Amino acid sequence: MKKTLLALAAALVASGAFAQSNVTLYGRVDLSVGSVKDDGTGATSNDLVNKTRGKTVTRMFHGGDGGLTTSRWGLRGTEDLGGGLKAGFQLENRFNADTGASQDPYFRGESSLSLMGGFGEVKLGRSTTVYDDVRTLGQSRDVFNSAFTASANGVFKSGGDYASRFDNKISYYSPNMGGFYAAIDYAFDEKAGVSEDKHALKFGYKDKAFEVALGHQNEKDKKDKYTVLAAMYDFGSFSMSGSINRRSGTAANGDDEEYALGVTVPMGAFAFSGGYAYSKTKHSTGGAKDGKANGFALGMTYSLSKRTRVYAGWRDVEVKNASGVKTKDERLYAVGVRHDF
Amino acid sequence: MKKTLLALAAALVASGAFAQSNVTLYGRVDLSVGSVKDDGTGATSNDLVNKTRGKTVTRMFHGGDGGLTTSRWGLRGTEDLGGGLKAGFQLENRFNADTGASQDPYFRGESSLSLMGGFGEVKLGRSTTVYDDVRTLGQSRDVFNSAFTASANGVFKSGGDYASRFDNKISYYSPNMGGFYAAIDYAFDEKAGVSEDKHALKFGYKDKAFEVALGHQNEKDKKDKYTVLAAMYDFGSFSMSGSINRRSGTAANGDDEEYALGVTVPMGAFAFSGGYAYSKTKHSTGGAKDGKANGFALGMTYSLSKRTRVYAGWRDVEVKNASGVKTKDERLYAVGVRHDF
Amino acid sequence: MKKTLLALAAALVASGAFAQSNVTLYGRVDLSVGSVKDDGTGATSNDLVNKTRGKTVTRMFHGGDGGLTTSRWGLRGTEDLGGGLKAGFQLENRFNADTGASQDPYFRGESSLSLMGGFGEVKLGRSTTVYDDVRTLGQSRDVFNSAFTASANGVFKSGGDYASRFDNKISYYSPNMGGFYAAIDYAFDEKAGVSEDKHALKFGYKDKAFEVALGHQNEKDKKDKYTVLAAMYDFGSFSMSGSINRRSGTAANGDDEEYALGVTVPMGAFAFSGGYAYSKTKHSTGGAKDGKANGFALGMTYSLSKRTRVYAGWRDVEVKNASGVKTKDERLYAVGVRHDF
Repeated sequence: MKKTLLALAAALVASGAFAQSNVTLYGRVDLSVGSVKDDGTGATSNDLVNKTRGKTVTRMFHGGDGGLTTSRWGLRGTEDLGGGLKAGFQLENRFNADTGASQDPYFRGESSLSLMGGFGEVKLGRSTTVYDDVRTLGQSRDVFNSAFTASANGVFKSGGDYASRFDNKISYYSPNMGGFYAAIDYAFDEKAGVSEDKHALKFGYKDKAFEVALGHQNEKDKKDKYTVLAAMYDFGSFSMSGSINRRSGTAANGDDEEYALGVTVPMGAFAFSGGYAYSKTKHSTGGAKDGKANGFALGMTYSLSKRTRVYAGWRDVEVKNASGVKTKDERLYAVGVRHDF
Repeated sequence: MKKTLLALAAALVASGAFAQSNVTLYGRVDLSVGSVKDDGTGATSNDLVNKTRGKTVTRMFHGGDGGLTTSRWGLRGTEDLGGGLKAGFQLENRFNADTGASQDPYFRGESSLSLMGGFGEVKLGRSTTVYDDVRTLGQSRDVFNSAFTASANGVFKSGGDYASRFDNKISYYSPNMGGFYAAIDYAFDEKAGVSEDKHALKFGYKDKAFEVALGHQNEKDKKDKYTVLAAMYDFGSFSMSGSINRRSGTAANGDDEEYALGVTVPMGAFAFSGGYAYSKTKHSTGGAKDGKANGFALGMTYSLSKRTRVYAGWRDVEVKNASGVKTKDERLYAVGVRHDF
Repeated sequence: MKKTLLALAAALVASGAFAQSNVTLYGRVDLSVGSVKDDGTGATSNDLVNKTRGKTVTRMFHGGDGGLTTSRWGLRGTEDLGGGLKAGFQLENRFNADTGASQDPYFRGESSLSLMGGFGEVKLGRSTTVYDDVRTLGQSRDVFNSAFTASANGVFKSGGDYASRFDNKISYYSPNMGGFYAAIDYAFDEKAGVSEDKHALKFGYKDKAFEVALGHQNEKDKKDKYTVLAAMYDFGSFSMSGSINRRSGTAANGDDEEYALGVTVPMGAFAFSGGYAYSKTKHSTGGAKDGKANGFALGMTYSLSKRTRVYAGWRDVEVKNASGVKTKDERLYAVGVRHDF
């Protein structure tokens, strides 16, 4: 790498190309302020939760814990290779906007390279699994389709343990075939080195107002299998989404049964939304670790522009163990701002 | 997040917007070379200091330890929302340019979201406290207003322990009201979860050539309170800044009394500057931990362009403990370059 | 740092400058998929290697372990200061594209500031050593001049322990003087604080089709000295590169003798390449730690565009200890994509 800056400058002039034309810099900052109170019983491994149980705590939330969505910045671009072929890449950092701390790994959101054409898309690297795509579809009208939703926060047990993204992944996304689509992920095993790879697949149908999809994910390292059926329908004056999700786990992890339902009603610059989620876990080894959880959420957004919206939301989540004791009984309120760039 | 790059590309075309128009990429690289010698007495907790005491060490400095200012890169932008309302964001990484190491957290410099209008500005996230703004004003003509200054390096005891930035902060900055301004910070307690929040406020007056401000900061987790009065006056042929700063701390932390004075004389592309700082710490529990410190600094900058300047500086700092023993007796020389982009 | 965003916006308008004109955002994503098998003997300190010995492992590679080159993103720019003087900077992050993890330090690739003119270039900060530049020249036609090459992966012993970049470095690069050039690095000692600095230098001659250079590096902290002679010749229908490299180390580190040879044959959008590397280590303390290594590599690239190429490669590396036992006996195959932006 001989790279004096003089040589660099010369090379840039010679190629007549500015990098800026090849790359888009984008991002989102999402922050909210609100209060949370957990009337749950029993000590947890989280010291902050233990100290604050039964007390109303007023605080700042970043996406993932009370905001609409996780803050991020990223780089992406596509290059036309001719003959209908395109190359593309995406690198996306996720960070906690309330403290400025980067999440780990740095390009946690996405780190991928794609070749695209009439055949569809082949993508290499780290990105969301196609199973996660279907989960997201099933919650897409539940409040605001991400962190604020009832389902994503403590209700769905498998939500806390499945891999929403795979490292070392090769994916194939089919083109749209008269509304139908399919995609598959294969992630190489690079930990134990022999037989702990992961894979996921999805099939779906999508038109202007309707989408339905089936997703499956198999994580061999944990011996857990996940299956989800999800749909979304836009009725014009309102839209709905829902999903049924199953985990078939080991004796230790248990089996999950999960349901989610969401509705969004747009009214001018406003959008009102509500969501419900339910989850039940059963272990073949007996009931002590079994449990049930359910959650409600209500929220509204007001769009100040295409890129900026303010929002307010409420969430109520309840988790019961096998004896019926509420180990979590949380109410969260928040108002916030989300800005895209 | 269904995000095949094809869909992404389509979305970008559909919205007709390039992210580049929404975001400004900026930064600064500041590096210098010089020598430092500490004739202080007694072992410290810093192994490098112990090894090099009494010896002249020639080395490279990055901002924060001998350069003008800390190196950084960042993203920022504002969006006009109509009706006099604007949204804005700023994300700023700080790094040590001599090694390429990022400081921690990643967006240590700033991670914020703002709504602005005739009412002023409301800012959420992590950013400098308004008390820190006033400190900065008081040192603004002291050599080069940051790391190289006498006051910021070992003289001001509270300079080493107060929080220059708050996480989880909500701030309000008033508009300029005939020269007068005010601002307040409130940072939620998210560590112990109950009653260790922090706040800061400032009041000031500013016109073309003059600024005076009063700042206060209360960090409940440390039980320390800070108050600073600072002013700056530009006489045309030269300008001066100064500050009086107090810390009212716990018996263990002690109380501080601090003074700073600085002057800068511009001459064409040159600027010559000098600074003095004095600090005294008293503990209610007795004198053993008490101490005094003072420092002088001289420097000059030469502007090669608006964005690039070279500089040379000298700094002399002396710290005495209660028995009059010099625990630090340091002289630093450095020449460097600072480039903004 | 008084920086309400309103003031910021005003300042930007006042200066009439957009940061975008001052900075180029660039990068590369490189990912490949392939298989690797190590028939070496004996347990190593690497658990993954121990588990997979004798087994074919199919996996994803990022640059540095089987791709063409390490993935990166960076910022760089130059500013014309008038009178033939320029300022320039470069900040380059390296990351593992298969997982999205940043390498450490953050700007591992480069973190530098330069002043350039008729006198040449003075560069401050972290960047590749001029000795590393000569090594790179010597491997420049060996398959694809970086991670995939035979020499860089386990054959060259000193390749695993010399510093390819120095922190706290001041460098001087001469201008081109009728084809001749020279450069020198000096890196300040900032660990022990007294006498463990590092330096490197190179001399070379370059014309359109030919380059030869001599490089030397002295790392006082390790007491290791490295010397390399390298050349490249472009015959038009093919090009070759080669190098001879020596390490003169301590009794514990040993002395190395290394050779590398590479050839690349372009054919339209294709380029075919092969490389060979050999390394021998001798310790003055006796033979137990001595060893020999050699490697072959073959590869081809196909350019889909100036910025995007696909590639396939094969690499065979063998390492023997003093007793002739193969401690490493690895074959690697990979196909991949590299995209520049």
